[in-house]
Amino acid sequence: MPVRVTVWGEHVHERRDESVRTLYPDGMHATIAQGIAELLGERVQVRTATLDEPEHGLSEQVLADTDVLTWWGHVAHDEVDDGVVARVHDRVLGGMGLLALHSAHYSKIFRRLMGTSCTLRWRNEGERELVWTVLPGHPIAAGVPQPLVIDAQEMYGETFDIPPPDELVFISSFAGGEVFRSGCGYTRGIGRIFYFSPGDQEYPVYHHPDVRRVLANAVLWAAPALVGEPPENAQAPQGWFERAGA
Amino acid sequence: MPVRVTVWGEHVHERRDESVRTLYPDGMHATIAQGIAELLGERVQVRTATLDEPEHGLSEQVLADTDVLTWWGHVAHDEVDDGVVARVHDRVLGGMGLLALHSAHYSKIFRRLMGTSCTLRWRNEGERELVWTVLPGHPIAAGVPQPLVIDAQEMYGETFDIPPPDELVFISSFAGGEVFRSGCGYTRGIGRIFYFSPGDQEYPVYHHPDVRRVLANAVLWAAPALVGEPPENAQAPQGWFERAGA
Amino acid sequence: MPVRVTVWGEHVHERRDESVRTLYPDGMHATIAQGIAELLGERVQVRTATLDEPEHGLSEQVLADTDVLTWWGHVAHDEVDDGVVARVHDRVLGGMGLLALHSAHYSKIFRRLMGTSCTLRWRNEGERELVWTVLPGHPIAAGVPQPLVIDAQEMYGETFDIPPPDELVFISSFAGGEVFRSGCGYTRGIGRIFYFSPGDQEYPVYHHPDVRRVLANAVLWAAPALVGEPPENAQAPQGWFERAGA
Amino acid sequence: MPVRVTVWGEHVHERRDESVRTLYPDGMHATIAQGIAELLGERVQVRTATLDEPEHGLSEQVLADTDVLTWWGHVAHDEVDDGVVARVHDRVLGGMGLLALHSAHYSKIFRRLMGTSCTLRWRNEGERELVWTVLPGHPIAAGVPQPLVIDAQEMYGETFDIPPPDELVFISSFAGGEVFRSGCGYTRGIGRIFYFSPGDQEYPVYHHPDVRRVLANAVLWAAPALVGEPPENAQAPQGWFERAGA
Repeated sequence: MPVRVTVWGEHVHERRDESVRTLYPDGMHATIAQGIAELLGERVQVRTATLDEPEHGLSEQVLADTDVLTWWGHVAHDEVDDGVVARVHDRVLGGMGLLALHSAHYSKIFRRLMGTSCTLRWRNEGERELVWTVLPGHPIAAGVPQPLVIDAQEMYGETFDIPPPDELVFISSFAGGEVFRSGCGYTRGIGRIFYFSPGDQEYPVYHHPDVRRVLANAVLWAAPALVGEPPENAQAPQGWFERAGA
Repeated sequence: MPVRVTVWGEHVHERRDESVRTLYPDGMHATIAQGIAELLGERVQVRTATLDEPEHGLSEQVLADTDVLTWWGHVAHDEVDDGVVARVHDRVLGGMGLLALHSAHYSKIFRRLMGTSCTLRWRNEGERELVWTVLPGHPIAAGVPQPLVIDAQEMYGETFDIPPPDELVFISSFAGGEVFRSGCGYTRGIGRIFYFSPGDQEYPVYHHPDVRRVLANAVLWAAPALVGEPPENAQAPQGWFERAGA
Repeated sequence: MPVRVTVWGEHVHERRDESVRTLYPDGMHATIAQGIAELLGERVQVRTATLDEPEHGLSEQVLADTDVLTWWGHVAHDEVDDGVVARVHDRVLGGMGLLALHSAHYSKIFRRLMGTSCTLRWRNEGERELVWTVLPGHPIAAGVPQPLVIDAQEMYGETFDIPPPDELVFISSFAGGEVFRSGCGYTRGIGRIFYFSPGDQEYPVYHHPDVRRVLANAVLWAAPALVGEPPENAQAPQGWFERAGA
Repeated sequence: MPVRVTVWGEHVHERRDESVRTLYPDGMHATIAQGIAELLGERVQVRTATLDEPEHGLSEQVLADTDVLTWWGHVAHDEVDDGVVARVHDRVLGGMGLLALHSAHYSKIFRRLMGTSCTLRWRNEGERELVWTVLPGHPIAAGVPQPLVIDAQEMYGETFDIPPPDELVFISSFAGGEVFRSGCGYTRGIGRIFYFSPGDQEYPVYHHPDVRRVLANAVLWAAPALVGEPPENAQAPQGWFERAGA
């Protein structure tokens, strides 16, 4: 059974900024989707959704048919409907994987899942970013060079106000000297979340073959072993597990 | 400098249920406050606040003067004002400690900080709870017997939908066979959070000397080494740390 | 490519204790191997090795051809050759998965990898063990009932002196009231380790279908994404990653 | 009661290398001890011990009278007696704090406690090291500037083969672009361990006021809440905790 991936893109910069459109003529989401599909082939079914679609393209049905959702947003975080955010949140707790990319650190859905401010230091001057693997046995690091070199990127620096990652896979350094926890895995409910920080819209990061490798690995890692309903409080009579035949 | 503790109590059961009033004639918050004050003496300044006070007794000024806030709520979670919740959330990220007690697992503030549903299994039949220390070097476990025995308590059982604790200190078992992660430490922002599950209103749990020891230890553990503003995104020019004279 | 599994068994009890031989006429290792093979089919190649073979059946070549090693030992921990232990240790750090089963908590290899005493409380009176999943999104928990019920087992209880697990998947309770962290995942070097506590020789635990499911899941989880040499200190000239063409 | 600190120094470089003797005329251990004593005053009692003393200055009695041991070693790791290492190991599991400094990453005691190879990449060219706090609520980070700037230091870089830290407090970057998990907290047994990487003998790192602040904070953090015997396996009869009057 293929992993059903929905690549969500805000798709605002690409339409208004010539520099971004040049890098991503069909939208960043199209490039991200293409990278995942190329590397994983028949192991995935990939579709895209964007902010301007009805329900941002994330209807109940679409989410029910999604194993892993990737999320890239930046200037329009506030335009994302709270009802859609609540729906995605429920689905993640129920088992859907989520890949939060770059400026999605400040998206409603990521902040809600983390419970912290998710703030950071930043500077956009096209510095070299080196992405270092610190957990080389992790499946998301498989086939990723040590370090992964991105010639020019926006700087994201500590302090990054996130919960200590359950699985810290990557740490980046920037030419200016800052460091950043750039690859962070979490389990929330029965869902898995991976935050990966490279990916500012002004640079061709999602064309980078090693970045694509990370995204493909992360899709497989986040694909649920189990999918269910969001958890609820439940009263449990004495010995219920005996009666259940467990 | 003493640790400034504010003990928050919902204070609903004590006024409407005779059985609870008998156990806690001055309110559960009064008993919790008394236990902390008795054990820590001059190391703390303790006051209380309740739901029915203006702003639930948690004005900007009160929170600014609070190092550690303890929270017990149950039937009236929904009556807690969202603005007060946001204020407490900001303060925790800015360094204020938070002790979430028993049914506070489902309070707005705890769920917001955790990012998960915080749901669990439960059964209220007065079963024996055994609280086992699994991290004996942790300061919250100092002086706590192995196991801590509570003769009668509400059962809280797994699956408890919380983020994996940063520091798992206690695991409970119940007479009916369930287990529960009953002592869970977290760092969020620059604040520390400790969830401790014993404490249903129908039992004299907060009179138990070992439970009081846990609460006193947790107050000291959660007391901030540093207090500041809630974190914000910030632009950082190249070499800002050199100019700062750092 | 199938995962190459080597099931190591001490194979002492089965030869000297009639009660154990009745449960495991071909040895516990044979039953464990059979369970993994049945559930995973063509996804694995399974062989066994025992203490009394030359080099305990764990020659350089065997280890080089092993992706995941399972380890059950009890009365003869001290008879395991230190050179073989060092060899297995190197291989785990180099990427080979390790499943440490039941009394292997006190094996040389597990203690060396953990760095702690790995001591615990125990009592062998055939109590019911309930194995509760606390991380339901973890692949090792997939298809495992909540709780997994083992009618009779040796009690292993806290305090279990291990490093806090990187991934705490299961917690058990026993009829006598004790709790135990019974399913613990670790990453060490580039290898993955899973400790699973059910499995005393006096009970038919490794015939239990849900226990077999856990072992099969754990084999897949521990199978390395990457295998290499054990890590070494290395001098790194300035910009070595540029010259490497990374 | 003051925290009893024993500062252990290998004390080899200072006697044979003029460059080191100039920086640390009384030995590195003397400078480290002085820094801790200056910042903590009456809260500590500090003494020193070195490799060339009988039992390396770490007799049973000295360890019994030590709450926190700091360890700096480099060229003479192999000369440390295995019996002394076993003794220190037992004491850490029994509650004594341990601060492992710089090249102590490769000491026998640190490797034994970690269970991994503790290898890393290195380059000694006097690069600027920036030590970034990533867990600002941690007591070891209190009063430490963001970032802590060390003008010249040996580079230690990832991959650092350690268990994922229980508490990752600091991450360093180096002028050459490498990153390193430079401040790592662990709990093992009932003892606490902090590894802090700055401190090559060729630079005046232990004279740096911010580095001294880190060491002083770490001493207080690692000071045991509880001290006991190293853990042992123990048989536990049914209901032992009732008879114990717990």
